Amino acid sequence: MTERSFLPIVLGAGLGTRMRSDLPKVLHEIGNLPLVGHVLKALAEAGAQAPAVVIGPDMPALEAAVTRIAPQARCFVQVDRLGTAHAALAARPALEEGADDVLVLFGDTPLVTAETISRVRAELAAGADVAVLGFEAANPFGYGRLLMRDGRLVAIREEKDASPEERAVTFCNSGIMGFRGAVALDLMVAIGNANAKGEYYLTDAVEIANACGLAVVAVAADEEEVQGINTRVQLSACEAVFQKRARLAAMEAGVTLQAPDTVFFSHDTALGADVLVEPNVVFGPGVRVESGTRIRAFSHLEGAEVGAGVTMGPYARLRPGARLAEGVHVGNFVEIKQATVETGAKVNHLTYIGDAHVGAGSNIGAGTITCNYDGYGKHLTVIGKGSFIGSNATLVAPLTLGDGVYVAAGSTVTADVDADALVIGRGRQTDKPGKAAELRARFKAAKAAKVAESARD
Amino acid sequence: MTERSFLPIVLGAGLGTRMRSDLPKVLHEIGNLPLVGHVLKALAEAGAQAPAVVIGPDMPALEAAVTRIAPQARCFVQVDRLGTAHAALAARPALEEGADDVLVLFGDTPLVTAETISRVRAELAAGADVAVLGFEAANPFGYGRLLMRDGRLVAIREEKDASPEERAVTFCNSGIMGFRGAVALDLMVAIGNANAKGEYYLTDAVEIANACGLAVVAVAADEEEVQGINTRVQLSACEAVFQKRARLAAMEAGVTLQAPDTVFFSHDTALGADVLVEPNVVFGPGVRVESGTRIRAFSHLEGAEVGAGVTMGPYARLRPGARLAEGVHVGNFVEIKQATVETGAKVNHLTYIGDAHVGAGSNIGAGTITCNYDGYGKHLTVIGKGSFIGSNATLVAPLTLGDGVYVAAGSTVTADVDADALVIGRGRQTDKPGKAAELRARFKAAKAAKVAESARD
Amino acid sequence: MTERSFLPIVLGAGLGTRMRSDLPKVLHEIGNLPLVGHVLKALAEAGAQAPAVVIGPDMPALEAAVTRIAPQARCFVQVDRLGTAHAALAARPALEEGADDVLVLFGDTPLVTAETISRVRAELAAGADVAVLGFEAANPFGYGRLLMRDGRLVAIREEKDASPEERAVTFCNSGIMGFRGAVALDLMVAIGNANAKGEYYLTDAVEIANACGLAVVAVAADEEEVQGINTRVQLSACEAVFQKRARLAAMEAGVTLQAPDTVFFSHDTALGADVLVEPNVVFGPGVRVESGTRIRAFSHLEGAEVGAGVTMGPYARLRPGARLAEGVHVGNFVEIKQATVETGAKVNHLTYIGDAHVGAGSNIGAGTITCNYDGYGKHLTVIGKGSFIGSNATLVAPLTLGDGVYVAAGSTVTADVDADALVIGRGRQTDKPGKAAELRARFKAAKAAKVAESARD
Repeated sequence: MTERSFLPIVLGAGLGTRMRSDLPKVLHEIGNLPLVGHVLKALAEAGAQAPAVVIGPDMPALEAAVTRIAPQARCFVQVDRLGTAHAALAARPALEEGADDVLVLFGDTPLVTAETISRVRAELAAGADVAVLGFEAANPFGYGRLLMRDGRLVAIREEKDASPEERAVTFCNSGIMGFRGAVALDLMVAIGNANAKGEYYLTDAVEIANACGLAVVAVAADEEEVQGINTRVQLSACEAVFQKRARLAAMEAGVTLQAPDTVFFSHDTALGADVLVEPNVVFGPGVRVESGTRIRAFSHLEGAEVGAGVTMGPYARLRPGARLAEGVHVGNFVEIKQATVETGAKVNHLTYIGDAHVGAGSNIGAGTITCNYDGYGKHLTVIGKGSFIGSNATLVAPLTLGDGVYVAAGSTVTADVDADALVIGRGRQTDKPGKAAELRARFKAAKAAKVAESARD
Repeated sequence: MTERSFLPIVLGAGLGTRMRSDLPKVLHEIGNLPLVGHVLKALAEAGAQAPAVVIGPDMPALEAAVTRIAPQARCFVQVDRLGTAHAALAARPALEEGADDVLVLFGDTPLVTAETISRVRAELAAGADVAVLGFEAANPFGYGRLLMRDGRLVAIREEKDASPEERAVTFCNSGIMGFRGAVALDLMVAIGNANAKGEYYLTDAVEIANACGLAVVAVAADEEEVQGINTRVQLSACEAVFQKRARLAAMEAGVTLQAPDTVFFSHDTALGADVLVEPNVVFGPGVRVESGTRIRAFSHLEGAEVGAGVTMGPYARLRPGARLAEGVHVGNFVEIKQATVETGAKVNHLTYIGDAHVGAGSNIGAGTITCNYDGYGKHLTVIGKGSFIGSNATLVAPLTLGDGVYVAAGSTVTADVDADALVIGRGRQTDKPGKAAELRARFKAAKAAKVAESARD
Repeated sequence: MTERSFLPIVLGAGLGTRMRSDLPKVLHEIGNLPLVGHVLKALAEAGAQAPAVVIGPDMPALEAAVTRIAPQARCFVQVDRLGTAHAALAARPALEEGADDVLVLFGDTPLVTAETISRVRAELAAGADVAVLGFEAANPFGYGRLLMRDGRLVAIREEKDASPEERAVTFCNSGIMGFRGAVALDLMVAIGNANAKGEYYLTDAVEIANACGLAVVAVAADEEEVQGINTRVQLSACEAVFQKRARLAAMEAGVTLQAPDTVFFSHDTALGADVLVEPNVVFGPGVRVESGTRIRAFSHLEGAEVGAGVTMGPYARLRPGARLAEGVHVGNFVEIKQATVETGAKVNHLTYIGDAHVGAGSNIGAGTITCNYDGYGKHLTVIGKGSFIGSNATLVAPLTLGDGVYVAAGSTVTADVDADALVIGRGRQTDKPGKAAELRARFKAAKAAKVAESARD
């Protein structure tokens, strides 16, 4: 089958008014990837080279997203919105190139799998002219019923036109259809608009193909896989299915999820074996974690690479560009951004490490801040290996501390420090005996005066 | 129907011993509003002006809560607890005023909707003398069955008195009842206590009314809506229903909830369209968020107003009195309390802004603390627009920084600063070459000595 | 029954290859206790004194865990893995001591309860020679069916050997079996390995016992209780059951869980009445909380003792050794480790208190850090009662502050301070008029130069 050429057409021009949103519908996301991106990913997995994507006019953000996710995709603009057949024909130039297999999919039906796409194509390879993807509906009301006879799909009957017997049919139309390339364009062009709305419906191709004596079949998928999205509620339902799949896949690959329902994956999260994930962890896009690492509760990772045997969290936050080497410890209320923390280093409490390099075995005290921003540019902090940064230290970048440097607690460091030096930059302690009692009396009196004043007003 | 006068009587005297709590039962909360408050809110929506609330003796906290939520409500004390009819009669002075519609509800049945209340009243307006609110029970065991004949409610049969056929009935009594005002008091007074517990049961009014030839009907509600609360488990079940309703309503209004089951609403949360809420967000009471704002994971908001196009979190905490103007950025581990942050300002990391005003476009560095408290009173910090507060700055209130002020990282600022000035308040850096190695040797030796000492003990 | 001696044999030698893990299977955890620990806990509750645990060779970590959880347990090593009967016989020395009741359980079936164990023993006490623990399977496919006749268990029929009628049986074998001690060893020794895999199956004891005319019975348990663990997915399913049980038990004891599904318990979590737990709270091992305390959202507790009437969180983290006395307030982004906070003290924001003692009524300002670590040893910070620690203070341990000490905001304190003294250790504020504007111009120019440079490259 790999030798057969393949043209998928992904329809994505819909405005999605029921989403009540300014965003084109297929740019809404699940697993932190636009809906249309999930379809494009499944197509790539199923071997598609250059999918056609039909978008609406004035959707530059959608075109940009498509190109970013599938650089070889071609976008076609559907100016008017006159039904699914009309939408598919917006990709006429691609259809005219004459692929062996043509598949029409929907940018708002994101959960379809590569395996299902391949099964539709397999029917085409086996001789079908048209192959409709169906599903057994738990509640078929409102769906077009797939009427089968002797293994052939004889008609798609809409709810309103169905007889009582036909309404009892639970095998329903997902809308996704495959066409033998040689007949695809002719069938689509033959579709008329003699219906209540005056639109061109791709499903009419089934009737036309049967009338011409072509071979029309149906392929079954899980209902879950073909659910489309028209509302925020449906969006969240698809997100839930995506998350369920991702959690299962992780567990099957040897990851422990203590509370799977509370762990949120992105489309590209990659976790090694024996990674242990505690409850309430969020993986944003671009995260890779090596084996044996423990991700404690309430951690949040995005665009981060985490080595083996790391312990992080609870409440650890890795932002894009964070790189933790093997055995690193990152504790609570710690933010790491665009920074590498080398083997065995510890950053355990209430710290911001941004635009920095922390040497192996160093210990970063609680409350340490790398001051990487001056209001205009970002600057680098380099901390040598085996260093000890005292608590509440303020490190003003650009700054380089040599290996084995010791920063006294509470210091502000603005100039580079040589290896093995101690650096102090803080005020000297002065005690004022009895003065605390005096202050308390003063503050108390001030408060009383204020209260009295308010009372007078 | 609006012209008909309406007296709701909310029974709330129960101690709720099965809650194992010191709190009066109807003061337990769902959606951060006491149970009785939900009933009062639904009544207000249904047009009730001055509901009667029956409370127990020694429940000043309950009376205060009722008055806070529904200032026009009147509380009546039921001294002994002799059944529901006895409780309703505690509001006898209100009953004697002769409203057109009388409704008896329960303070521990918080999910009843205004729409259902109006349907009961509609039956009274249409001529019913008594209207009982029923529900189809998934499992009717233990409930009183509503025995209907020709559209009339002929009896409420308790489990223990029911025949096998009557036990098969699944239409059950919620306890909520409506009365035509002209007969309400007479019916209640007619109820006796000739039963095992010697109590006065309001449900007996059905039998009496039927015996008098009055028109008795039933109205059906969802079981979910009329579930009462006697235990913590039932409390959490009602909380779950409340949250489900709130999540659906938000999504239908155009809010994206990436993981609806992990977002917790209060009774008064107000979110604009295209607000995106990531997983694990908690809305305490009094939150309003304008459209297009992104609330990242693990954020917690209470009593806060958030403008449009704001990005906050993960791990952002807004406390009462926080006001974020349009386009503000609030990052991780940031707490904002009783403070306004003006347009476009950024407070991105590990910061406490309390009792403060941050000017438009200012940048607050990581680790900044406004020292608003001296142990007695709270004081104000004002930061001008376009200011830059260096990291780990300590701003001691009362304090005013002019526009465009630049605070050097690590500084403590105690006195007001003029516009466009640089302010530094930190120790000067001193390096001691080789001293870090010396310190390490000393600390290592001290540790070894300590270990040796423990071994000797 | 208490007089009957009891030998439980817990089989725990399995490698658990389907877990895809380096850890022995029964060391995986639910409720932060190894699987085998749950079985040992249930056995201890059911009165077992010295259970036998069969482990694999080279499992020192498992042996150590068993001994830690049940110091009187004896471990036996099963060198080859030749089936369950072979495994049980690894404990032959224990069997030869001749207990009255012998029970074989599985280290990977952690949810069995003491009550069920006692019911199996009760059958032995009542005269049964063999008692098999069964369950009604929702889907019996793949399980051995328990074939009963006249109250006796006549056979265990494996799926592949079952007739259609036998397959319809839904009463299935859990694998857990009780034996009258006098016959246990003989029955186990009599089991052969004439089967496809050449292994010794303990279930064969049923056939042998019946053939010898012994009394064989079955005891029923909930399916949930006897589910075994072979995969991470099953591990998470058992964790979910454990959590459901723990949440229900807490609510029944008078704890309010606002969102039970988001609260995670450990096996030993102890919460008092009227504790209120907001959504998203994680209890690690070793936590005890007194009554009336409010644990706000996103809090994380491990090894901590919390007194009555405390308010903590959101985002409060208590680590092992944290002790909060009555009425303490701990706020957001606060970490407390190995430290006691006395009555009424407040630690409200962005603070690390480690290896410390905070006196009653003291107020610890935002951003305060106790510097407890010098890279080698940990040192103690003692803060007297009624003290006020200004924000962003750095307290370098070992350090003792007397009662009523006032630390100025932004200070670093390195030497002990007498009671009622004020201590200041920070730089003096210097303003440089107009200098901020100058800096902005300089930083802006530097950024522009950098951009220009990148453009040239």
